[in-house]
Amino acid sequence: MYIRKIPRLYNCSLEVTVEVMGGKWKPFIICYLQNGPKRPTELQKMVSGISKRVLAQQMKELEDHAIITKTVYAEVPLRTEYQLTAFGQELLPVVLMMEKWGRMYQPHLEKMRIA
Amino acid sequence: MYIRKIPRLYNCSLEVTVEVMGGKWKPFIICYLQNGPKRPTELQKMVSGISKRVLAQQMKELEDHAIITKTVYAEVPLRTEYQLTAFGQELLPVVLMMEKWGRMYQPHLEKMRIA
Repeated sequence: MYIRKIPRLYNCSLEVTVEVMGGKWKPFIICYLQNGPKRPTELQKMVSGISKRVLAQQMKELEDHAIITKTVYAEVPLRTEYQLTAFGQELLPVVLMMEKWGRMYQPHLEKMRIA
Repeated sequence: MYIRKIPRLYNCSLEVTVEVMGGKWKPFIICYLQNGPKRPTELQKMVSGISKRVLAQQMKELEDHAIITKTVYAEVPLRTEYQLTAFGQELLPVVLMMEKWGRMYQPHLEKMRIA
């Protein structure tokens, strides 16, 4: 359970979303969980450039915010899987719209860099 | 014009969007420009907690990415206004969807903190 020492007041609901899914990595993690549960090693391969430690920290924050759940299967060796909760599923349209905008904008960005 | 020294390769279009609108402040700036041009002093009042220096830096990055344009009116004193470009306008649905998700999720977040 995630508890801030000083409760934060929000002026705008956008602050809530930026707190929960903002940053460099979380949109990717949410995106890559769209097709069902994934193991941490699978996610680390998918999220380009993330270290094991940073991934674990991001997953913990997403779990504390009830965006993902962690399931540990009592196998040898232990198997851990993460999946989106209902709240996390509802973030998918945001992430997919970001992906769509990026696809539209990417040629422009590349053109700017060549110019 | 924004030019990286080492051109970046993108595995996924989401990386483009995270690069352009990611971080703590840009979703707010884009959101607050939705109803037309704003002066920097107006934006600083609207974006809760941002310093003048950080706001200027964020505006410069958004301008370099062609998300906003800056217009300086030859008045005394000089008047500066920022507004969304067509690319910036197309980010508005993303930001508004983030705002909507935040409104839905906020009661849950507040409940978690009391529990």
